Amino acid sequence: MISCCLGSVRVNLLVERDIRTLYPKGGVMMNVTQLSSDTLKRAQERFEETLDQMSVDEANTMPAALIKSVTWLIWHTARELDYQISELNQTKPLWLSAGWSTKFALDLPDDTEDWHHTPEEAAKVKVTEKVLLFEYLKASVDLTNTYLATLEEKSLSDVVDRNWTPVVTRQERIVSAIDDAVMHSGQAVYTRRLVIGK
Amino acid sequence: MISCCLGSVRVNLLVERDIRTLYPKGGVMMNVTQLSSDTLKRAQERFEETLDQMSVDEANTMPAALIKSVTWLIWHTARELDYQISELNQTKPLWLSAGWSTKFALDLPDDTEDWHHTPEEAAKVKVTEKVLLFEYLKASVDLTNTYLATLEEKSLSDVVDRNWTPVVTRQERIVSAIDDAVMHSGQAVYTRRLVIGK
Repeated sequence: MISCCLGSVRVNLLVERDIRTLYPKGGVMMNVTQLSSDTLKRAQERFEETLDQMSVDEANTMPAALIKSVTWLIWHTARELDYQISELNQTKPLWLSAGWSTKFALDLPDDTEDWHHTPEEAAKVKVTEKVLLFEYLKASVDLTNTYLATLEEKSLSDVVDRNWTPVVTRQERIVSAIDDAVMHSGQAVYTRRLVIGK
Repeated sequence: MISCCLGSVRVNLLVERDIRTLYPKGGVMMNVTQLSSDTLKRAQERFEETLDQMSVDEANTMPAALIKSVTWLIWHTARELDYQISELNQTKPLWLSAGWSTKFALDLPDDTEDWHHTPEEAAKVKVTEKVLLFEYLKASVDLTNTYLATLEEKSLSDVVDRNWTPVVTRQERIVSAIDDAVMHSGQAVYTRRLVIGK
């Protein structure tokens, strides 16, 4: 597992002797984001296992006004990863660049602020096919992990958002994105239990 | 933030020239677990903010048979961190060594398997004072972060549990413990909404 996660130029800068000195077992330095990628994978698996157990109608169901549907939770998680990582990566969000907006065809604007949706707005997030949710989530997780694997550690302290006090660093934005995905994956399990009773 | 997270002997093995070459901005290498500690801190804050909004009776309330109380979720999260990190650390769990079993005085054995509690078992996890939850969670998070900060990266690939197929590495156990804490913190928000309507 350790040998899979290079991706940072810093390893290339080390001479062979240094690597042997530092890692007598023969390992190489991990990217500091590897455990975050592994953690995000757990969230993705939890969402997939949850959605597997539900019909599309059940997935679209909000069991209470303040409890989001599994559809909303997966869509929002994919979207928060997509938008935040794309911004860090200085690329256009997949929602717009890869056709997800058209495929989902929601009755909401592309710039809807999902993180403070009212129950009425949240109820508009519905799909006709579960595959859309699996695939947009996968695309966003893949985007995130590709970004994390190639990130240079020294850029983690860069300020990426001055709209907050204190300002937000790249490291804080990444932690926030991963935390949000994982915590929503736990909520999806509770929504599922409330909707299908197991 | 980056400068706070040494803790690994590998940095000490690098000569000054290498550090300057690798980190021209003057930074130092982060421990590979730093982002996991940061992520765990988000979960702790989410639990604390949730519990702050509830009375002790509300915290003890299970809103449905399959939805745990906030008390159960915090107790279980503290305990899963405590037991798993103590095992990795080869120390006795704080539950037993620091008096938490006596303080909580639950009608459950110390070795209760909380991860598959029935609703009846989960209902037995109640407290008379919220401070117990805040403090046991803090003690377990502190234990985890101290362990993570001093971990040597090369030990992450060690096999720590042969009771599973495939066997579990230290890295996988750490990721599992962090993921569990964060996903339960999201569930605590949903339990709170179901119990107090906000």
